Amino acid sequence: MDDHAAFLQRVEALRAGVDRRLAELAPPLGSAPDRLVEAVRYSLLAPGKRFRPIVTLLAAAEFGAAEGAALDLGCALEMIHAASLILDDLPSMDDAGLRRGLPTIHRAFDEATAILAGVGLLNHAYAVIAADQGLPAPLRAELAGRAAQAVGFSGLIAGQARDLFDRDQLRDPSVLERLNHEKTGVLIVAAAQGGGIVAGAPDEAIEALGAFARHIGLAFQIRDDLIDAQASPEAAGKDVGKDAAMATVVSTLGPAGARQAMEEHLAKASDALAAIGRGELLGRYVGDLFARRKAAA
Amino acid sequence: MDDHAAFLQRVEALRAGVDRRLAELAPPLGSAPDRLVEAVRYSLLAPGKRFRPIVTLLAAAEFGAAEGAALDLGCALEMIHAASLILDDLPSMDDAGLRRGLPTIHRAFDEATAILAGVGLLNHAYAVIAADQGLPAPLRAELAGRAAQAVGFSGLIAGQARDLFDRDQLRDPSVLERLNHEKTGVLIVAAAQGGGIVAGAPDEAIEALGAFARHIGLAFQIRDDLIDAQASPEAAGKDVGKDAAMATVVSTLGPAGARQAMEEHLAKASDALAAIGRGELLGRYVGDLFARRKAAA
Repeated sequence: MDDHAAFLQRVEALRAGVDRRLAELAPPLGSAPDRLVEAVRYSLLAPGKRFRPIVTLLAAAEFGAAEGAALDLGCALEMIHAASLILDDLPSMDDAGLRRGLPTIHRAFDEATAILAGVGLLNHAYAVIAADQGLPAPLRAELAGRAAQAVGFSGLIAGQARDLFDRDQLRDPSVLERLNHEKTGVLIVAAAQGGGIVAGAPDEAIEALGAFARHIGLAFQIRDDLIDAQASPEAAGKDVGKDAAMATVVSTLGPAGARQAMEEHLAKASDALAAIGRGELLGRYVGDLFARRKAAA
Repeated sequence: MDDHAAFLQRVEALRAGVDRRLAELAPPLGSAPDRLVEAVRYSLLAPGKRFRPIVTLLAAAEFGAAEGAALDLGCALEMIHAASLILDDLPSMDDAGLRRGLPTIHRAFDEATAILAGVGLLNHAYAVIAADQGLPAPLRAELAGRAAQAVGFSGLIAGQARDLFDRDQLRDPSVLERLNHEKTGVLIVAAAQGGGIVAGAPDEAIEALGAFARHIGLAFQIRDDLIDAQASPEAAGKDVGKDAAMATVVSTLGPAGARQAMEEHLAKASDALAAIGRGELLGRYVGDLFARRKAAA
C-alpha cells in the first residue's frame, strides 16, 4: 500500500470512529419522545464526511494527544454543525428541501420537530463536552466556552442573521468575508484549536491552528458558492442555485476570480502551519479534500 | 419597617440586580446584526419576576456563598428560560401571540428572528457560565453540564416534544407529571441546586434543594393550568385557554382537586427544606409568591 492510500485509510478509520461514537452519544430511543429522538438520529447519523471532528482529531494527533482524547469534543462540534444545518434549512430561513442527499428534517418530519431536534443537538453538544471524563474539568469549561463563542452572537448565529437580514451589505467584500467566516470558519477554528488545546499545544500553535482553520473555512465557503452556482442538486446532495440573487465571492469576482481567491486562502492556510513547522496531517487531509472535489467546483 | 416588608425589599433588590446584570450580559447593539440583537434584548430584558435567578441567589445565600457569586449562573438560567419561552411560542409550536404582556417575538419581529434569538439565548447561557470568572473552572464545567441536562432530551426539550406529540398519553397521571416536571421543574431544580453548588453546600443539601424545586415546579405548573383555565389574557400577560382540549391536572382532577394537589406539592417542598433545617429564605420567597397569586388562580 502506498503512502497516500495509507493516509486515506487512516482518515477513513477516524471517520468510522466518529460515526460509532456519534451513535453512542446520540440520545437512545426511549429517552425522550420517539419522534424527537428519531429526528435527531436521522439528522446526526446521516452519512457525512465528519470534516470538523476529523480536523479536531488530526490537530490533537499533531500535538501528541492520547488517541481518542479529542473524540467526544469532535463529536460535540459535529452535533453543533448538524444543528446549524437543520436550523438554516428551516422554512423561515433557507427553506431547503434536500440535505446530505436526504429530505431535510422539517420535510421528513415537521417544522416543530426540526426546531426541537436542532436546538436539542446544539444543547447536547454542551452536555457532551461537560461530561467528557477523559478531559480535566477546567479544560471542559474552556472548550465549552470556545464552542459557545463559535456558535453565538459573533459566530454561526450572527452569520445566519447577517445572511437573512443584511444581504444588501454583502456587496462590501469585508462584510461578505465576515459573513463567510461566521457561517463556516468559526466552527472549523473551534475544531482545529480544540484539538490543539486537548493536546496541550502551546499558545502560538493554537494561534496558527486558528489562522489555518480561518482560511480553510473561507476557501470552503467559496468552493460551496462555486458548486452552488454550477452543480446539480444530485451532485451537491443539497439544494443549489438558491443564492443566485445574493452577493457571493463568485458573483463579485466571477468564477475564475473566486477560484483564485480560494487558492490564495488555501496557500495562506498552508503558510500558517508551515510557520510553526507542524500540521502535516491537517494540511494533507484538507489538500486532499479540495483536490478530490475540484472537478465538482 | 416590619420583617415582611424588609424581606420583600430584599427580594426586590435581588430582582433589580438580576435585571442590571442581564442588561450587561446581553449582546450589545453592533455585536451582531441589529435586528437579532434587538430581538434578543426585547425578549430577555422584558419585565419579568426573575424567579429562577432569585431562587439561585437565595439558595446560594442559604449556604453562605459570597454575595453575587451565583449572579451570572442565575442570569444564564434566565436566558435559558427566555429561550424556552420564545421557542415554545413559535407558530409551529404553541403559536402564541402574547407573552409577559407583550407581543411574542415572532409577531413583533418575524419567525426567523425569533428562532435565532431563542437559539442564541440558549447558547449564550453556556458562554456566560463558561466565562464566569468568579467561579473555579471545574465548577463551571459542572454547572454547564447540569444546565445542559435540564434543557436536553430528559428536560425542557423532551417536555416540549411530549407536549406536542404525545398528548394522547397525558391522561396517564404519571406521564402528565413527568411532562410538567420536564416543562417547568427541571430548570427550577437547576436553579436551586446550582445556587447550593456555588455555595459549596453538602450533597444532602443539594438533594433536598432538588426535591424542594421539583415540588415547587409541579405546584407552579398546576397554578399555571388553573390560571389558563380561568383568567383573562390581560391578567395572565400571555395567551390563555389554549389548553382546553388537552389533559392537565385541572382537567383530570377538577379545579378543587388541582388546588389540593398544588397545596400538597407546596407542603412537600417545605418538608424537603425542613428535613435539612435550612432554606428559610427560599421557603418564604416561594410561599409569598403563591400567597400573592392565589386570587388569580
